[in-house]
Amino acid sequence: MGVMRMGYAHVRVTDLTEAKNHYASTMGLYETHTDVSPDGARRVFYKGWDEWDHHSVVLEEGGVGVVKYGWKVEKSEDIDIIEKKAAGFGVTVERMSKGENPEIGDGIRFMTPSEHVFEVYHEATAIGTEVGTHNPEAFPRHLVGVGAPALDHSLVTAEDVQGMEDFLREVFDFYPTEKAMTSLDDDGECVGTWMTSNNQIHQFAVIGGPQGKLHHFAFRLGDWHEVGRAADLMTMDDVPIDVGPTRHGITRGQTVYFFDPSGNRNEVFSGGYLAFPDRPVNIWTVDQLGKGIFYHARELNERFTTVLT
Amino acid sequence: MGVMRMGYAHVRVTDLTEAKNHYASTMGLYETHTDVSPDGARRVFYKGWDEWDHHSVVLEEGGVGVVKYGWKVEKSEDIDIIEKKAAGFGVTVERMSKGENPEIGDGIRFMTPSEHVFEVYHEATAIGTEVGTHNPEAFPRHLVGVGAPALDHSLVTAEDVQGMEDFLREVFDFYPTEKAMTSLDDDGECVGTWMTSNNQIHQFAVIGGPQGKLHHFAFRLGDWHEVGRAADLMTMDDVPIDVGPTRHGITRGQTVYFFDPSGNRNEVFSGGYLAFPDRPVNIWTVDQLGKGIFYHARELNERFTTVLT
Amino acid sequence: MGVMRMGYAHVRVTDLTEAKNHYASTMGLYETHTDVSPDGARRVFYKGWDEWDHHSVVLEEGGVGVVKYGWKVEKSEDIDIIEKKAAGFGVTVERMSKGENPEIGDGIRFMTPSEHVFEVYHEATAIGTEVGTHNPEAFPRHLVGVGAPALDHSLVTAEDVQGMEDFLREVFDFYPTEKAMTSLDDDGECVGTWMTSNNQIHQFAVIGGPQGKLHHFAFRLGDWHEVGRAADLMTMDDVPIDVGPTRHGITRGQTVYFFDPSGNRNEVFSGGYLAFPDRPVNIWTVDQLGKGIFYHARELNERFTTVLT
Amino acid sequence: MGVMRMGYAHVRVTDLTEAKNHYASTMGLYETHTDVSPDGARRVFYKGWDEWDHHSVVLEEGGVGVVKYGWKVEKSEDIDIIEKKAAGFGVTVERMSKGENPEIGDGIRFMTPSEHVFEVYHEATAIGTEVGTHNPEAFPRHLVGVGAPALDHSLVTAEDVQGMEDFLREVFDFYPTEKAMTSLDDDGECVGTWMTSNNQIHQFAVIGGPQGKLHHFAFRLGDWHEVGRAADLMTMDDVPIDVGPTRHGITRGQTVYFFDPSGNRNEVFSGGYLAFPDRPVNIWTVDQLGKGIFYHARELNERFTTVLT
Repeated sequence: MGVMRMGYAHVRVTDLTEAKNHYASTMGLYETHTDVSPDGARRVFYKGWDEWDHHSVVLEEGGVGVVKYGWKVEKSEDIDIIEKKAAGFGVTVERMSKGENPEIGDGIRFMTPSEHVFEVYHEATAIGTEVGTHNPEAFPRHLVGVGAPALDHSLVTAEDVQGMEDFLREVFDFYPTEKAMTSLDDDGECVGTWMTSNNQIHQFAVIGGPQGKLHHFAFRLGDWHEVGRAADLMTMDDVPIDVGPTRHGITRGQTVYFFDPSGNRNEVFSGGYLAFPDRPVNIWTVDQLGKGIFYHARELNERFTTVLT
Repeated sequence: MGVMRMGYAHVRVTDLTEAKNHYASTMGLYETHTDVSPDGARRVFYKGWDEWDHHSVVLEEGGVGVVKYGWKVEKSEDIDIIEKKAAGFGVTVERMSKGENPEIGDGIRFMTPSEHVFEVYHEATAIGTEVGTHNPEAFPRHLVGVGAPALDHSLVTAEDVQGMEDFLREVFDFYPTEKAMTSLDDDGECVGTWMTSNNQIHQFAVIGGPQGKLHHFAFRLGDWHEVGRAADLMTMDDVPIDVGPTRHGITRGQTVYFFDPSGNRNEVFSGGYLAFPDRPVNIWTVDQLGKGIFYHARELNERFTTVLT
Repeated sequence: MGVMRMGYAHVRVTDLTEAKNHYASTMGLYETHTDVSPDGARRVFYKGWDEWDHHSVVLEEGGVGVVKYGWKVEKSEDIDIIEKKAAGFGVTVERMSKGENPEIGDGIRFMTPSEHVFEVYHEATAIGTEVGTHNPEAFPRHLVGVGAPALDHSLVTAEDVQGMEDFLREVFDFYPTEKAMTSLDDDGECVGTWMTSNNQIHQFAVIGGPQGKLHHFAFRLGDWHEVGRAADLMTMDDVPIDVGPTRHGITRGQTVYFFDPSGNRNEVFSGGYLAFPDRPVNIWTVDQLGKGIFYHARELNERFTTVLT
Repeated sequence: MGVMRMGYAHVRVTDLTEAKNHYASTMGLYETHTDVSPDGARRVFYKGWDEWDHHSVVLEEGGVGVVKYGWKVEKSEDIDIIEKKAAGFGVTVERMSKGENPEIGDGIRFMTPSEHVFEVYHEATAIGTEVGTHNPEAFPRHLVGVGAPALDHSLVTAEDVQGMEDFLREVFDFYPTEKAMTSLDDDGECVGTWMTSNNQIHQFAVIGGPQGKLHHFAFRLGDWHEVGRAADLMTMDDVPIDVGPTRHGITRGQTVYFFDPSGNRNEVFSGGYLAFPDRPVNIWTVDQLGKGIFYHARELNERFTTVLT
C-alpha cells in the first residue's frame, strides 16, 4: 500500500496559549504531549478522538505556516522504496531517527519540489482511543466543542503544480482525483491537483502560488449537520470563518474554512465521494473554478488566493 | 493495491419484473443492459449514479441468493498474483474470458472456502456518470427513489469464519477491521469478521452459518438523513424493512436492512469510520453482539441469523 | 389564545436518585429546584435549556405514572373562562393558590374525564435561559447528554377517547390534527386523537385504554440528526429504548421511545408539520395504525399498547 | 385566534415564463391556476406540497416587488374585528368580494403604514394535498427540485419600524419575538422587528428602509440537510444565491437567500424555535446585527440592505 495517510501536520503558531485554546477547546483535540523542541520552541501535540496514534497535529510556537508533514507508510520497507524514488526524482533525502519526533519511529525526511518538508515513517506509538477496542461505543460520551475525530488532508501552494503532481505520483504513488486546468485542450496547464493514495478523496492538494506555503489543513467530520454545528461553535468562540458552511464542487465535500488565532487556515470537511484509481479524473476549467471551490457562491473570494501562511 | 473493490454482486431473483421495480424504481439504480444468460435466464444489469463502470448489480431470474461476486483489481498482473495465491491455498481457479460477463474483461473465477463464487477482473467498460467529469455538478438533478450512488459491501455466512478470514487475508490482502469472538481469551473463536482491502470499513464480511449463503448486500448512502429518507421511501413502496433505521455498533455505520421482492436482504449503509490496516481491530464478544449489530435495540432479532438466501 | 402550552408534566418515579441521573445526565435537563412535598415526597424540578419558565418537568418520589399536567394560559382571565367551561362540562374544579406549586401562580385544578389531573395557571417565575435575550448565541455552549430543549407533549389513555376529545375541544379550545378511527364510515369510533391549541402538531394525545394512565411524555428535538444522536447516547447510558429511531406516520414526527429508570415512557420528538385549525384532519384507520404509529416497521409492538404507568 | 397565517404572497415578476421555471422547476411548487388579471396581466398561482388551500404564491407579470399579502383568519368574524381595529388605527379599509382573488372569499383590503397592501380573508378553496388525509404517506413520492412544502413568512422595509410593529400588534394581535434596537437604553430605537401571531418564529418582519418594499419572502423547509440540498439545486439551476447556507442569529433559523429571475429575493428557511407570547423577546443591538442576520459570517453584505424590490 505504501503511504497510508497523512500522519501529522506540524505547524507554527505565534502564541501557543491562544492556539491551545483553539485546537483544544474549540476543535476538541486531545492533548497528548507537550515539550520544548531542540531549538527551544514550546510545542504541544494533539490527536483527534478517533485516532489511535500518538498525535496528528503538532503546534510549535514561533511564526506561522507549516513546519512539516508526516506520512505513515504501511510497511517499514516502504520507507526505503520511497527514499529511492525520491532520490531518483533528484530530491535530497536524509534519514531521521526514532525520537526526533516524540513517539515516532525511524524514517526519512526531504523537501518536496514545492518546498514543503515531508517526513515518512512507519512506527508511531499507538495510544488508542477513549472508546477502546472491546465492544466500543460509537463515540466518546463527552466530546469538547467541535470534537474533531481526525486530521484529514492539507492544501498547499507551489510554483509548479504539475511538477508537484508528478512528484507525488512517482514517489508516493498518489493519483489525482480532481484537477483544475487552464483549458481542456492539450496545452491546458494544471493549476490545481487533488491527490490521494487511498479512498480518501484527497490527502494532499496543490494549487498554484508561492513555494512552501500552507493554504489550509483540514479535520474530518461526519456529515453536513456536524459541519453546520461546527460553524455555530466557531461563532460562539469568536473563531474567524473564512467561508462556509458550503459545499465544494471539487471533491463534493462539505466545508467550513476558518482561521486559527495565528492566521493559519483550518477546515472542517465532510462527505466527498470514495476515491478509486480507476475512476475518471474530474477536470475543472479555470472559468468554473469559483464553482469548483465554492459550489454555492460560485466565485472565489480574494482571501482564498491571497491568504497563505 | 490489488483488489480495489467489490465490482459487482450478481444475485438471483424469483421474478425479474418485480425485482426491476425494486432495484430501479425504489433504489434508483440505472439499468445499463439486459440479456439472456447462456443457460437461458433473463438478466438485467444496473449501476448506481456515482459509479462509472458498466454495472455493479446483476439480477438473474430463477431462485434467490448470490450467484457470484466480481472483484476489480488495480492492475492486470494482480489477477495472476491472486490466481497463484488462491491456488496456493488449495482452491481450484479457472480462467474466465472477456465477455463471459458483458462489458467485463478477462479474469479468473474460483469458489471460496465459504462456497461463494468470486470473479477477479481488471477491465470493465467505463460508461461514466450522468454528471460527467468536466466541471461536474454535485449529483444528478433527477434521481429516482432512494437514488443509491453505489454498491458498497456484502455479508455472507460460512461454516468456518476464521478459515474464510484467513483465505481473504492470504489471497486478497484483506484485513479485518472488526471481529466477533466467543471470548477475549486465547481460545476465543471467531464468529464474525468484517474485512477490507482499502479504507471502506468493510467490503466483505462473514458470519457463522451455512456455506454459500447470502446475508445481505449493501448500497452506500451519504448520511443519516439519507438513510432515514430511504426508510420513508421503502414504506411508500411497500418494501419490507427488516431492521432500522438504526446504527451498527460494528463499523459504526447507519443502516436500514430490507428485503427485495424475492427475499434477498439489502441494506442501505452510511457512515462508518475510515479503515486503515494499522488501526487496532475492534473486538466484539458474543454477549455484546446484539449491541454490535443493532446499536440502539441492543439485541438481535431472530431474522438476523435465520433469514438467508 | 387561551391555553398556550403544556407548562409542566409532573410524574412519579420510584427512585429519585436514579431518575435524576436519567433526566439530568442523559436528557440534559437543568435542575432548578428540589424540595419535599407537603405529603413528604422528595421532588426535583427541571427545565430544558430553551425554556424560560421555572420548570417543565417535576419528578416526585414514590410510584410511577403522572401526577398532573400544568397548562399555561396567555391571560389570567383565561383561567376563569376555562373554569366555567370545565364546570359546564360537569367537572369539579377547585382553585389552587400561588405557591402550591413552587414558582407557579394561582389557578385551577380539576380531573379530566380521562382521570388525569390538570392544573391551569397564568403565572410562572421566568428564570430565563443560559444564552439570555441580548444578542443570544444559538444554543448553550456546553449542553449535557441529549440536551433536550423543551417539553413537547404527552400521550395518555382513556376509556372514552371521543369523550376526552370533546372535553379538550370544549374546555381548552383544542382541535384534533390527526385521529385514529375504527372505520371511515359514519359509525366509525375514535380510538385515538392528537390535539393542539396552537401550531404544535400535538400538545396532548389520547388513545383507548385504562383511565388515568400515562403512555409517554415527550421532549422536542431539532431534527432527525439529533434524534439519532439521542438514541446513541441512550445506548451509552444503558437507557432502555422501546422503539426507534423511526418516524411516526401520525404527525410525521421523528422519534425514539424509551423508558426512564422507573419505567415511565419518554420520547424525543422532532419534525412534524405545523398545525392549523383549518387544515383537514388526517384520519388513520385501525388496519393502518401500525404504519400510523411506526411508519417504518408498519406494525405495533406489544409494548406500545400494554406498557403504561 | 384571529390571523392564522400568511395565506399568500402576491408578487410581480418581469417575465412570467422565466419565473414559472424558477418557482415550479427549481422550487417545486405546484401550479394550481393561471389567468389574466382584470388589468390584463398574466398570472400564475402556486401552492407548496404541504398546503391544502388553493394557492400561497401568486406571480403577476410586469415589474418586480410585492403586490399584496393575504392573511387568513380563523373565523369570519375576525375580519370584522380587524376591520374595526385597522380603521381605529386610521387606516382606510375597503371590502373585497369573493372571487376578486380566485378561490378566495370575501374580506377586507387596506394599505399598512409601511405601504404594503394586506388582504384579510377567511375562506379559501381547499384542494388538499397529494398525500391526502386518509392514512397519508409522509410526503409525496415524486417531488420536483427543492420541493418546498409551504410559504413561511416575509420581510419588508418601512420608514417607521416601531410604528409598523405597533400597527401589527394592535390590528393583527401580532407580538414580536425578536427586535433590533439602536441601543438597550430607554431611548433605543427599533430598527427591526420579527413578529408573529402564532408559534411560527416569524410571519412578518420589518426593517428600516423605504416604504412599500419587499426584502424577501420565504419557503419553509424541514431541516439543515434540506437547506443544504436546496443550495445545491440552486447551483445546478443557475439560481443566484445571495447568502447561505448559513444560520440566522435572529430566529436561529437556517437559511439560503437567493433571487428569482426577476430579482425578487426568496429564502428557504428551516428551524427556529417555537414562538410563544410569554417568551422574553430577544433584543439585538445594531453593533451585533451582522451576527444577528448572518450568524456565521457575522457581518452584513451590502446587498442585504440595498437590494429590495
